[in-house]
Amino acid sequence: MPVATVKYYLREGLLPPGERTSPNQARYSPAHVQRLRLIKALTEVGGLPLASVGAVLGAIDDHETPHQTMGVVQQELAGEPPKVSDEAAEWATKLLKDVALRTGWKWHEPESREVGNLVAALATAKELGHEKLADRLDEYVGLAMRVAELDVEVVTGLTSFDRIIEAGLVATVLGDRIFAGLRHLAQEQLSREVLGRPPGD
Amino acid sequence: MPVATVKYYLREGLLPPGERTSPNQARYSPAHVQRLRLIKALTEVGGLPLASVGAVLGAIDDHETPHQTMGVVQQELAGEPPKVSDEAAEWATKLLKDVALRTGWKWHEPESREVGNLVAALATAKELGHEKLADRLDEYVGLAMRVAELDVEVVTGLTSFDRIIEAGLVATVLGDRIFAGLRHLAQEQLSREVLGRPPGD
Repeated sequence: MPVATVKYYLREGLLPPGERTSPNQARYSPAHVQRLRLIKALTEVGGLPLASVGAVLGAIDDHETPHQTMGVVQQELAGEPPKVSDEAAEWATKLLKDVALRTGWKWHEPESREVGNLVAALATAKELGHEKLADRLDEYVGLAMRVAELDVEVVTGLTSFDRIIEAGLVATVLGDRIFAGLRHLAQEQLSREVLGRPPGD
Repeated sequence: MPVATVKYYLREGLLPPGERTSPNQARYSPAHVQRLRLIKALTEVGGLPLASVGAVLGAIDDHETPHQTMGVVQQELAGEPPKVSDEAAEWATKLLKDVALRTGWKWHEPESREVGNLVAALATAKELGHEKLADRLDEYVGLAMRVAELDVEVVTGLTSFDRIIEAGLVATVLGDRIFAGLRHLAQEQLSREVLGRPPGD
């Protein structure tokens, strides 16, 4: 990693200062190196802007329970939900509330940005006339539960706060990328037969 | 949608010109409206830059088989993979090749950007010391297969080329957002118990 990048992160407060050993030298600990890796993971793989990375690292350093910290992190990761029509948004919200009821999930009122983004994505599918995806929502939710169970198993057993939060970030930021990549590969394998000829053949 | 936005899309070639009915008026068909919705879905929900949207729409208009078109679309969506260390990349590539072999997937050589991104995400988890996620890769792959089966079922039965491609885009661009949102909600429900107290309690 270029020295200029490290200096930039120091100026932006993303990285705590190293231990000064002479007027123009500082020593950095393994914790610094790990934090640099985390920033790189969030920006380059997760695609987060540096301002969001700052907010995420701030939430980590605030040291509430891992669950609360992950809530802040999710909120930062989610970004501002895009605008959709009221009609489509109401349809999607009702759909999700019904699923939450059937699944036994606690529903948040007022909604989080995470839920706002989910509503917007479902509403957009409906606006495009592709609400068939929503007919299978219960099945998608069942599979999302199974994936989340795996995610939580990966985190369980870790004992240090930083390691738990890191693992949580890995499971969400990297985990979303990894799962999406696997899903696309699987789609490609499965759809070669169905979509590999002109429609109507 | 503001008129200025429509004019901008026309200038950028993202939207075909309407049928001119007088020197300063044009009529737009339902196909135009649908294309506008698709651009909005790709940019605002999918977060794609307009240059990528242009390439995606170009691939749609080129009219190869839906499978080939979706290949181009995936390539555009994937973006340039981030840099990771050679060692971590080799570890991740071997991991994926082994999974592909066990699952019976066809492996592409040279690798696509999609695979490059997947390798980079797995390699980054390893660099952070969180390779435990990789121990469960077979289980994640199994669940990704089940999600992809649902995705393909949603697309199957459509007969027009445009509708198939649209549904494919919905399943990938919106589908990734929707599944990630459901996974985060599920993680939150499941992790409240495990992560809702300070570590070590």
